[in-house]
Amino acid sequence: MVARGVRPIKVRYDGEVQEPPHPLRFRADALEILDQTRLPGSEVWLTLRRPDEVIEAIRSLRVRGAPLLGIVAGYALVLAAGDAEAVRAAARGVVAARPTAVNVRWAVGRMLRVLERAPRGDLRPTLIEEAERIRAEDDAWCRAIGRHGAALLPDPARVLTHCNAGALATGGYGTALGIVYAAATAGARIEVFVDETRPLLQGARLTAWELTRAGIPVTVLPDSAAASLLRDGSIDAVIVGADRIAANGDTANKVGTYPLALLAREHGVAFHVAAPRSTIDPDCPDGRGIPIEHRAGEEVTRAFGLTTAPEGVCVYSPAFDVTPAPLLTSLVTEVGVARPVNAPTIAATLAADAASDAPTPVR
Amino acid sequence: MVARGVRPIKVRYDGEVQEPPHPLRFRADALEILDQTRLPGSEVWLTLRRPDEVIEAIRSLRVRGAPLLGIVAGYALVLAAGDAEAVRAAARGVVAARPTAVNVRWAVGRMLRVLERAPRGDLRPTLIEEAERIRAEDDAWCRAIGRHGAALLPDPARVLTHCNAGALATGGYGTALGIVYAAATAGARIEVFVDETRPLLQGARLTAWELTRAGIPVTVLPDSAAASLLRDGSIDAVIVGADRIAANGDTANKVGTYPLALLAREHGVAFHVAAPRSTIDPDCPDGRGIPIEHRAGEEVTRAFGLTTAPEGVCVYSPAFDVTPAPLLTSLVTEVGVARPVNAPTIAATLAADAASDAPTPVR
Repeated sequence: MVARGVRPIKVRYDGEVQEPPHPLRFRADALEILDQTRLPGSEVWLTLRRPDEVIEAIRSLRVRGAPLLGIVAGYALVLAAGDAEAVRAAARGVVAARPTAVNVRWAVGRMLRVLERAPRGDLRPTLIEEAERIRAEDDAWCRAIGRHGAALLPDPARVLTHCNAGALATGGYGTALGIVYAAATAGARIEVFVDETRPLLQGARLTAWELTRAGIPVTVLPDSAAASLLRDGSIDAVIVGADRIAANGDTANKVGTYPLALLAREHGVAFHVAAPRSTIDPDCPDGRGIPIEHRAGEEVTRAFGLTTAPEGVCVYSPAFDVTPAPLLTSLVTEVGVARPVNAPTIAATLAADAASDAPTPVR
Repeated sequence: MVARGVRPIKVRYDGEVQEPPHPLRFRADALEILDQTRLPGSEVWLTLRRPDEVIEAIRSLRVRGAPLLGIVAGYALVLAAGDAEAVRAAARGVVAARPTAVNVRWAVGRMLRVLERAPRGDLRPTLIEEAERIRAEDDAWCRAIGRHGAALLPDPARVLTHCNAGALATGGYGTALGIVYAAATAGARIEVFVDETRPLLQGARLTAWELTRAGIPVTVLPDSAAASLLRDGSIDAVIVGADRIAANGDTANKVGTYPLALLAREHGVAFHVAAPRSTIDPDCPDGRGIPIEHRAGEEVTRAFGLTTAPEGVCVYSPAFDVTPAPLLTSLVTEVGVARPVNAPTIAATLAADAASDAPTPVR
């Protein structure tokens, strides 16, 4: 289907909205994951029975997305639960598989703390309980983000997103896409425009797949075409996830997010960032403190296994960019919405967190 | 080679600057063209002896770029020069091969006019002369654009470009890249950052190839990473070509040009458009009158022969966008530079054209 013109698609709100697809299942003695490198062409489930199989799946990007990696790390330790030493060895291996993924480190830390307190004998019930708790928290956070964010959207709403901050990046609901699912489930007419997101095409491959599976109308576009849509008045809101948010609200996310935010401001379109509180780094005062990883040049010069650039060229391929907080309309978290986005509203959001998590005071 | 950080490459000005590679040769009874679908992996020359072979090469994008298509159309008619009727049949076939390429229509019109005036007998010398004239004019225009534009660049200059407006799109020198070649040949230290330019990657495949061949340092980047470079202060000027320019300076060019222009303004970087006067459409008052072609959805959903988006999604893939004239720092033509770019400065540029082309008045 090829779309033409200013309003590129005839919107189809005729289907039932489904729950988005889940990217993993835990069963008895095995973790089953959806192989994300095979999407959208094939839906292949991998059965992982040993921690080293999980580590390979993380390394080869068969499973990705910061929150999902935290959940998978928890289950990897369950698979090692013969004895405490095997669990600790698995913990080291999982953390080393994606050293920059802070969620892996955080989930492994939680698992190791419960390991210390586990009763002698079979460690598995204790570890399974904690792994399930990590997963359940993620799900609750995503659904709360969805509810808070859905209230910000008009009905009908034409939403533009970039990369994948959806079910496939989390335990099965998503942050940016969690808002889409929550709004659509509540009956709003939502269609989503998806940047294909070079170089790895997570938008075209993953976001378009999970939205289609959930029954949401999808239009995919080259990243450079988003400007035309925003200018034509074809978008009501941009919603993206975040990899790290500074204390003042400056937001690191997949490269290409900053130019989208600038275009949204130019054309008077709302720009929302959706992320759990755990993504906010209170020790990082502003975006200048956020380190930016760079991708391997081969993703550009040998894209899709072809020769896509001549020998000898340099490549500039940052994985992320930083969007200044003043370009954000709102920051949607599981405890509420910071709007406008700045250091005081972020601090208030974190304070709400502290209040809700605090133990009941002893009288 | 993988570049990292704000100044992504160590600049190498050590090589000699060469003339850029030519995309075609005419010899005796054959037109030889460089097969642009095979670049940058293979440098394959095709020998075309009949008009229908040229038409196939145009249709399959083995040869592309509006000015180059005009030149090729001229030679296609030479290849048909057995008799006048064969030339007219070839003219119809060539125009039908790329109906939207105004340069093809224009070149064919010139060829048919000289055909009418050709002496009886062998038509070839007359047609060859006109085809060579079309080619020579293109070369002169590009070199003049190069000289005018080079004067606008600092030394050293870090130039960002999008798509291919170079030797491979013209007779062998280029418009946007003509400025780069002219500046480098005059001794300026120039390096070029090249957007890969989805969906067909003309930047990564073609611009990077011809610049590398000419000895200019090149860095390729995903389109969405240009914002980071501009923001980091890593770019001194953006230079792009144009497909059509309205009378007020609104410029249609490859999709992704408009967001680049907006980013350049945001970060105080000069944004130059380079094009011959023939690209300016005086009958089109502003950008709203420029029709925008849309590309086939398969370029996004089946990119590079792979399944890159799920079945059933819509695709939004405009080939061009329109950059409003106020975002242009200057418009560089073969007769001089319009700066600022608006209806009066454009009209003055066209008037300069008329003056220089006018026949010497009879006394």
